[in-house]
Amino acid sequence: MSELWDQARAGDIRSLAKAITAVEAASGLGILAAAYPDAGSAHIIGVTGAPGAGKSTLVDRLITVARAADKRVAVIAVDPSSPFTGGAILGDRVRMQDHIDDPDVYIRSLANRGHLGGISAATPKAAALVAAAGFDPVIIETVGVGQAEVGITERADTTIVVVNPGWGDSVQASKAGLLEIGDVFVVNKADRPGVDETVRDLRQMLELGRALQWTPPIVTAVATEGSGVDEVWAAIEAHKLHLHDSGRIDERRAVRAAAELHDAVEVSVRRSVESRLAVESVLDEVVSRRLDPWTAASRLVDLDG
Amino acid sequence: MSELWDQARAGDIRSLAKAITAVEAASGLGILAAAYPDAGSAHIIGVTGAPGAGKSTLVDRLITVARAADKRVAVIAVDPSSPFTGGAILGDRVRMQDHIDDPDVYIRSLANRGHLGGISAATPKAAALVAAAGFDPVIIETVGVGQAEVGITERADTTIVVVNPGWGDSVQASKAGLLEIGDVFVVNKADRPGVDETVRDLRQMLELGRALQWTPPIVTAVATEGSGVDEVWAAIEAHKLHLHDSGRIDERRAVRAAAELHDAVEVSVRRSVESRLAVESVLDEVVSRRLDPWTAASRLVDLDG
Repeated sequence: MSELWDQARAGDIRSLAKAITAVEAASGLGILAAAYPDAGSAHIIGVTGAPGAGKSTLVDRLITVARAADKRVAVIAVDPSSPFTGGAILGDRVRMQDHIDDPDVYIRSLANRGHLGGISAATPKAAALVAAAGFDPVIIETVGVGQAEVGITERADTTIVVVNPGWGDSVQASKAGLLEIGDVFVVNKADRPGVDETVRDLRQMLELGRALQWTPPIVTAVATEGSGVDEVWAAIEAHKLHLHDSGRIDERRAVRAAAELHDAVEVSVRRSVESRLAVESVLDEVVSRRLDPWTAASRLVDLDG
Repeated sequence: MSELWDQARAGDIRSLAKAITAVEAASGLGILAAAYPDAGSAHIIGVTGAPGAGKSTLVDRLITVARAADKRVAVIAVDPSSPFTGGAILGDRVRMQDHIDDPDVYIRSLANRGHLGGISAATPKAAALVAAAGFDPVIIETVGVGQAEVGITERADTTIVVVNPGWGDSVQASKAGLLEIGDVFVVNKADRPGVDETVRDLRQMLELGRALQWTPPIVTAVATEGSGVDEVWAAIEAHKLHLHDSGRIDERRAVRAAAELHDAVEVSVRRSVESRLAVESVLDEVVSRRLDPWTAASRLVDLDG
């Protein structure tokens, strides 16, 4: 395990992939312990928005811009497990072909098992590994299922919210709680009608919503044609600079560490409880009313443990 | 504690109220353990639907009908903690006045702390206590916040969905997932236009949606005037008979016990996680990257415990 991680850190992509598989399967605790101290410096970019907003295409274009700036880029894409959005999986695979010969681009899809609001439970682990392996920035691309996306803000340094032009899209973003979490807004597919109205709506809602040190820029783009992508990248860089200049980066990262610890503890406790429930015949006792659920729960979850 | 419960079971309403307060505050585990074996026979009626649909008025009328049938009725009403629907709290208090001198009616409001989808975490505990104290039926009236209401179906033997006439209300019910959970549908405020269309819409959607042993009746009512309420009561009784004749009541109650155990474990897990995180200085170590979150979690949660 330790050897695997040494090779990954030395730049061997195949070892990195194996290491991520190991931590995804919850067997690579030693790797995580070895990687975590080095995982703190990469800039983490979260990309969220409704399905079909064009997140994958935008991310693809951002990789190209980042490579032109001589960055080593990693993308953690959360694959939807739902057949409804199955097309995105194919899209990811096609997309990966574009960069397959570039050792400074690493793209990894993780299965979304519905944890952590649209983000796989393995996402922070994979992000830590690619960051510790020297990739910077790390882009986390979420499934895009509305309210569930809000969790991304705790995982990322800079959160990009992608919307499309047209009446109602900005309102939908507002309803889904995306206005509160965006550091940069991208109105993608800006060759469609309604761009000005959507930008104006977003601006008004953002002004109403908050008094901030950072005013989220609203960038229009047509990611399929590559237009506006340089501006998105510039906005990300400006936000990164703001975080470091203001010292807020430390705050964000402390919040992220706390969230990761909380989630990790929650997963561990749940696993512990599930194994206890499986072993013991508690459910039978509760169904037959020989034991009440609350006493059963207090026995299963040892509060002094 | 045990004495308090003995008095509650013997019919002392004041002791019952104190016992519910104790279990609501999570200090009455002994009471729950004593009450739970006797809590299995009462018929649990869940009443759900959008805010303003007339749930409280309908429940008030159902109490009167049930009293005429010589039933001892308990109502567990989940009080919204949101100021948005604060009017309902006042309504509950006014309503309680109607039955204040009747020892065979017990109405209890519980604060909704946002757990369990519109149902207070204390709801199943309070329901168990009133059932064990000899009240039957027990009516659980939910806050009515759309999708969140779906949880009621696991708490109730018979779920009543209240809608109003008018274009879109049945569609809203459908979107909120209420069509799947209703055992009885009540089109309340049936003195308003659009009743026939709403009934027709509901019937069509119900026919499309499922092939069932039980076809949910659709009852029209004007609860404020008391019209249709006898029919609602008859529909409840018919559904109860169906559950018992078909043996499905045992299934429903096994599902309910499992859901209650699951929720109780979840609450205990959360409390356990919080207390573990509070005691140890693990968070500092994680924030400073001296320790990774996953190793920290595995240490905090003894998987062999």
